[in-house]
Amino acid sequence: MTQPAMNPGSRLDPWVASYAARAQGMTASAIRALFSVASRPEVVSLAGGAPFVSALPLDEFADMTAQLIRDRGPTALQYCTGQGDEKLREQICGVMELSGIHAHPDDVVITTGSQMALDLTVRVFCNPGDVVLVESPSYVGALGVFASYQCEVVHVPTDSEGLNPAGLSEAIDRVRAEGKTPKLIYTVPTYHNPLGITQPPQRRAEILQVAKSAGLLLLEDDPYCLLGFDGEVPRAIRADDADAVVYLGSFSKTIAAGLRVGWALAPHGVREKLVLASEASVLCPSNFSQLTVSEYLATQPWQEQIKGFRALYLERRDALLESMEQLMPPGTTWTVPEGGFFSWVTLPEGLDTTAMLPRAVAGLVAYVPGTGFYVDGQGRDAMRLSYCFPEPDRIREGVRRLSGIIETELDLVSTFGPGANIAPHSKRGPNTPSPELP
Amino acid sequence: MTQPAMNPGSRLDPWVASYAARAQGMTASAIRALFSVASRPEVVSLAGGAPFVSALPLDEFADMTAQLIRDRGPTALQYCTGQGDEKLREQICGVMELSGIHAHPDDVVITTGSQMALDLTVRVFCNPGDVVLVESPSYVGALGVFASYQCEVVHVPTDSEGLNPAGLSEAIDRVRAEGKTPKLIYTVPTYHNPLGITQPPQRRAEILQVAKSAGLLLLEDDPYCLLGFDGEVPRAIRADDADAVVYLGSFSKTIAAGLRVGWALAPHGVREKLVLASEASVLCPSNFSQLTVSEYLATQPWQEQIKGFRALYLERRDALLESMEQLMPPGTTWTVPEGGFFSWVTLPEGLDTTAMLPRAVAGLVAYVPGTGFYVDGQGRDAMRLSYCFPEPDRIREGVRRLSGIIETELDLVSTFGPGANIAPHSKRGPNTPSPELP
Repeated sequence: MTQPAMNPGSRLDPWVASYAARAQGMTASAIRALFSVASRPEVVSLAGGAPFVSALPLDEFADMTAQLIRDRGPTALQYCTGQGDEKLREQICGVMELSGIHAHPDDVVITTGSQMALDLTVRVFCNPGDVVLVESPSYVGALGVFASYQCEVVHVPTDSEGLNPAGLSEAIDRVRAEGKTPKLIYTVPTYHNPLGITQPPQRRAEILQVAKSAGLLLLEDDPYCLLGFDGEVPRAIRADDADAVVYLGSFSKTIAAGLRVGWALAPHGVREKLVLASEASVLCPSNFSQLTVSEYLATQPWQEQIKGFRALYLERRDALLESMEQLMPPGTTWTVPEGGFFSWVTLPEGLDTTAMLPRAVAGLVAYVPGTGFYVDGQGRDAMRLSYCFPEPDRIREGVRRLSGIIETELDLVSTFGPGANIAPHSKRGPNTPSPELP
Repeated sequence: MTQPAMNPGSRLDPWVASYAARAQGMTASAIRALFSVASRPEVVSLAGGAPFVSALPLDEFADMTAQLIRDRGPTALQYCTGQGDEKLREQICGVMELSGIHAHPDDVVITTGSQMALDLTVRVFCNPGDVVLVESPSYVGALGVFASYQCEVVHVPTDSEGLNPAGLSEAIDRVRAEGKTPKLIYTVPTYHNPLGITQPPQRRAEILQVAKSAGLLLLEDDPYCLLGFDGEVPRAIRADDADAVVYLGSFSKTIAAGLRVGWALAPHGVREKLVLASEASVLCPSNFSQLTVSEYLATQPWQEQIKGFRALYLERRDALLESMEQLMPPGTTWTVPEGGFFSWVTLPEGLDTTAMLPRAVAGLVAYVPGTGFYVDGQGRDAMRLSYCFPEPDRIREGVRRLSGIIETELDLVSTFGPGANIAPHSKRGPNTPSPELP
């Protein structure tokens, strides 16, 4: 065991005194250990955000990939440019046309999943202490990125149409009055993670206007846009302004998460910075993954496949909503997603979803507690339920188990009073994201 | 065109005033434009570090990948854990055994190429202003990472056995005397990029001792270790100390760069931080790439394939060295690599390789100027020549062209005096790495 001189570490970690200040923001989630238990097959997990990739046309995918390696192996297995494959960038522009975006391939940067596009954008823009404005609640993986760059996160109120523009404007003014520097507005306008709600067009216009008036960059994270149950694709905020928005897209939910192919579409000067940051970070994205996606888009009926995904996820959403309607105790409310993977469930007063989680997992059902989507301890009475991965019958069984757990908690509270079920340390700060929770 | 309020940008980039301080360290290399010209087929490029992946068994690779998708598609195309696939981590431990390292899979973190492992390590350890000690010269991609985290880089003298331990020790003392915080020692001990030289065992032990005495973490970057021409694998520094070293490995040079699969082997506490940083950065590495590598290691004769690579690169190294011997003007010297991809060439006094590069590219040969491997303007009279990608005849033709260019430069200098060939702005600072220069 080395104990480095002049570097007083602990017995468990001799390097504990050497880490950068930013590493303080990188802490493991307290619920992570629980999720490793929750991945056991007997547990119905309504926690994860993993797409149902078993529904992909795997035989065709296998043949296509083999052909790609035979035809263009020396390219697919080689380094590429930091910005990513040019043809795939053109194809991505075609995909974005569905959201009303007319973009040039030169303004697209391909990344190792859109998580990396988010990471690079924050890396390029945010000094420690800069403020990022986010929804209440916000995507746990984004909160992890902001924490890892020592940003201060400010939650802005949301309503049934998503991020509230007046609340956003007030928050920006307040942050500036406090002498802080707001830098980014981060929003998931379509089939929000975790809220499951979608900003209507007028709301999007108002948010864009607030961002522009305040001179803040709007970071539009849009991985679910093709997964609307009515088959319509909401018009992206980026479709109405090319200079005020960095738009993040992904093939993780629509094709396959394991390929890790996402992108940023950015104003030209920002795009240059993102490419340089990406090169420092990974030299270049995987050409193997990129050309696989490119070939898939070029040779397979991908729009039909996504249509199939929509039907599959709609059936699962309905299983979730119908069984909640039948089984959840009075006083429980939830959002009705029109696409995407998630519903946000609020429990009757007095319950604490973080405190309840161990009992839920013991009862063989898992969810993500609401506090995970806040940096400030909000969300104790809420949880995110996902319907993307389990089969409909399993979803129904999961809700049956979950409603039983909630009934028991309510009994506890009504017998011993509010707070009876609350663990002493259930308030938690930001955590880095876990791949179980994309 | 949006001109954001309260955010005075330029006409070319409305966001120019909004970037983080760290973005100042992300600048495009002046030679980058030249390299896009140099990628034309008529130019012999002795610049790039791309492995010769055409020599892979592509048919077998294609069949194997198709079978993987048929057998385990729903896993290969799904998210995985942030640390990476457990079986591949076990296999990586097997690969590292060849370097004398006995490690546990739990201490391995799989990353999007070892560049990302380097990025994560610096992210976790280095505050702005922290000092990283590196070889003279050092890997351009590492310098880009250090710049992007606002580290100060200090070049330590090297000799024929690589990084000089006495020089290292003196540099650490000097840095501390200046009130600065040294944080990492970064070294490529085996078939150094760009020097092409290898630290003998005694030298490695001395460097480790200096690092431990000073309480500094040693970052051992070892992507070329299996590519020694004698077939022996040098014993890694990490083999002799598990607590003082973060070891970086890669399949990019030995199997395929386009898969982007690398790793860090770290002391346990550091490993935990690296996983959290990786999850914030990309959620998880590509499972598609990981399982492809895992399957390749499990089912294909990969050690035989690497043996084939060694023979191929040896023939190319010999082509380079023999033609330099025949053609280079007197006063030119070079290192003799015993493995890896590079030789470091020093020109006769008075020549400037950065100034010469445009004329070389016009003469249809390319190299990387020596200044690219320093942060302080050193290396003007040197260049890195790589022999990994072009066929032997092309290498010989490249050296013929290059020696002609150098002769012409020497004529200029002897006619008009020293400095005649030096461009006014040829001194350059650190740049982000370019994928052309891995």
